[in-house]
Amino acid sequence: MSDTLTISIDAMGGDNAPEAIVDGVSRAALRNPDVFFLLFGDEKQLEALTAKYQLAADRFKIHPTTQVVKGDDKPSVAVRSGRESSMWKAIMSVRSGYAHAVVSAGNTGALMAMSKICLGTLSGIDRPAIAAVLPSLQGPVVALDLGANAECNSQNLVEFAIMGHVLYRVLFQVEKPSIGLLNIGSEETKGRDEIREASTVLKGFGDKINFKGFVEGNDIGHGAVHVFVTDGFSGNVALKTIEGTAKFITSSLKEAVRSSIVSKIGFLLATPALRQLKKKMDPRIYNGAMFLGLNGISVKSHGGADAFSFSYAVESAIHMTRNHLCDKIKEELRTVMDVTDILSEELHKQ
Amino acid sequence: MSDTLTISIDAMGGDNAPEAIVDGVSRAALRNPDVFFLLFGDEKQLEALTAKYQLAADRFKIHPTTQVVKGDDKPSVAVRSGRESSMWKAIMSVRSGYAHAVVSAGNTGALMAMSKICLGTLSGIDRPAIAAVLPSLQGPVVALDLGANAECNSQNLVEFAIMGHVLYRVLFQVEKPSIGLLNIGSEETKGRDEIREASTVLKGFGDKINFKGFVEGNDIGHGAVHVFVTDGFSGNVALKTIEGTAKFITSSLKEAVRSSIVSKIGFLLATPALRQLKKKMDPRIYNGAMFLGLNGISVKSHGGADAFSFSYAVESAIHMTRNHLCDKIKEELRTVMDVTDILSEELHKQ
Repeated sequence: MSDTLTISIDAMGGDNAPEAIVDGVSRAALRNPDVFFLLFGDEKQLEALTAKYQLAADRFKIHPTTQVVKGDDKPSVAVRSGRESSMWKAIMSVRSGYAHAVVSAGNTGALMAMSKICLGTLSGIDRPAIAAVLPSLQGPVVALDLGANAECNSQNLVEFAIMGHVLYRVLFQVEKPSIGLLNIGSEETKGRDEIREASTVLKGFGDKINFKGFVEGNDIGHGAVHVFVTDGFSGNVALKTIEGTAKFITSSLKEAVRSSIVSKIGFLLATPALRQLKKKMDPRIYNGAMFLGLNGISVKSHGGADAFSFSYAVESAIHMTRNHLCDKIKEELRTVMDVTDILSEELHKQ
Repeated sequence: MSDTLTISIDAMGGDNAPEAIVDGVSRAALRNPDVFFLLFGDEKQLEALTAKYQLAADRFKIHPTTQVVKGDDKPSVAVRSGRESSMWKAIMSVRSGYAHAVVSAGNTGALMAMSKICLGTLSGIDRPAIAAVLPSLQGPVVALDLGANAECNSQNLVEFAIMGHVLYRVLFQVEKPSIGLLNIGSEETKGRDEIREASTVLKGFGDKINFKGFVEGNDIGHGAVHVFVTDGFSGNVALKTIEGTAKFITSSLKEAVRSSIVSKIGFLLATPALRQLKKKMDPRIYNGAMFLGLNGISVKSHGGADAFSFSYAVESAIHMTRNHLCDKIKEELRTVMDVTDILSEELHKQ
């Protein structure tokens, strides 16, 4: 692998592929002149689109593929019969050492299943998780798992907490990010068994991590902790509920403004301030969910991402690569895993 | 029981009890001249507060109690040793026929446990659920369970769907409200076993109900269906995430406005429109979670409710009583339960 950073792109995945994907890559390429792209997908379409979006010839290489993983394909089916797909080939290029990371806006389940098979999971990790950065009143927070594991045991939750801890450190240079376990009440007696068990284990880490105990759904917007840990079902519900609520409020706001001429003028005056706010809260700049716990970097863009949004998923992969996220998770896992093993044994003795 | 509607109030439950409770009752009393209130709690405090908030002497009766269920009491402990509490006594007054409904801002778990014991569950219902009305782009929606049952099987989810269907009909006069099962993807293969099983059963009802299949977190804000059905863990996470996101956005908006004089003037002009919007979306008017599946009406106010907000939880109890919600759920259950039984048997044969 050369010194240049190389990112593989599944150019056929997502609602707006391949056009928004190539357009997005082209935008990310302008912002990151030292990155080279491998584009996997339909050769003819990609040739036309790279020309249309003026992606310089020395910045990319097209790898023609003939198959596309569909949005409603079962992950197991995709894995078995999708070996010629743009998604599989893009991930394999990371495994083979041709690229540092892969980005896809395609089927989440298939991407996770293929990434697990191709890249393998880190030693000490039972199940990889999907993490994302979200805005909050206190600045960015990290949440995981957001949908990879609909059901989790306490050990999975503990592993998510450690991976979230490392991710936050790498992304935001905070020495000991605070960690909370999502529950339906902050009292010790609330919630499910696996959450209470995970809490006991995490407390046992002492000052190796900054575990704050249980948090609730409203704490995400408040930014009560840096890292929110939960199972993939609740995490996915929370993530999508944030999306729906934000849309509901902004749509209602727009409607309210249109209700009178005076309020329209008022909003016109406030436009610069609102534009700033919109920019800060634009969900598109938070695009790029990270698969943690793999032996390689695999980033999932929102399926409905436009070019602007997809370019941020690419940025996310670049940032993770530049900061050696996988190596850092491996390191941290080594130092804390001894503690986990001891604690798990203790817990199972009880 | 006289013809007047009588509502029992646990005046000692909640962060701002008893003052906000009595103030709230007084506000609800003004809006509902035909309702009589039984106030359970510390006699001296309630005498002083009813005087302070000018609750007319012929509109209430104080029932002195000596014990208070605390916010962090375990429900099992509260049930065993809280028989002299304002909460228990208030619920018992409904069971004894002295009141039509009870409202409390106290410990949710204790209120549910005590309500179950005192009022009993409806025949055919395995587990009562907590339901609430939420605003959406398409108007009000109902969501349940919001925290009574951290874990649910498919049968519980089916019962929640039926109760939600009846609640929506009663509250909003829609003949066949649309029902969705909260999941982490709309495809058939997604999510947990119990959710897929519940979906099969609900489809078996045919046109008796208007079941739309799986929905996701973002569909709540969109108002994609009238009734959102989920387990108490995810429901609670979703509810609190909505709360946190709304606070995050409105706080960020306020901050943005303060950033310049021009934008301040702009917002001043838009104030009437914004005030309208604020009124429409004020979470306080949606206060009052309903315990469904009980042989009686028990309403849970937000623990942190102020007087204005608590008065809406009282309204909610009044509305449910006036519309004979319990009887209507019983009726509907009778007509659909036969179908459920048949379907469950079918499902278990498979």
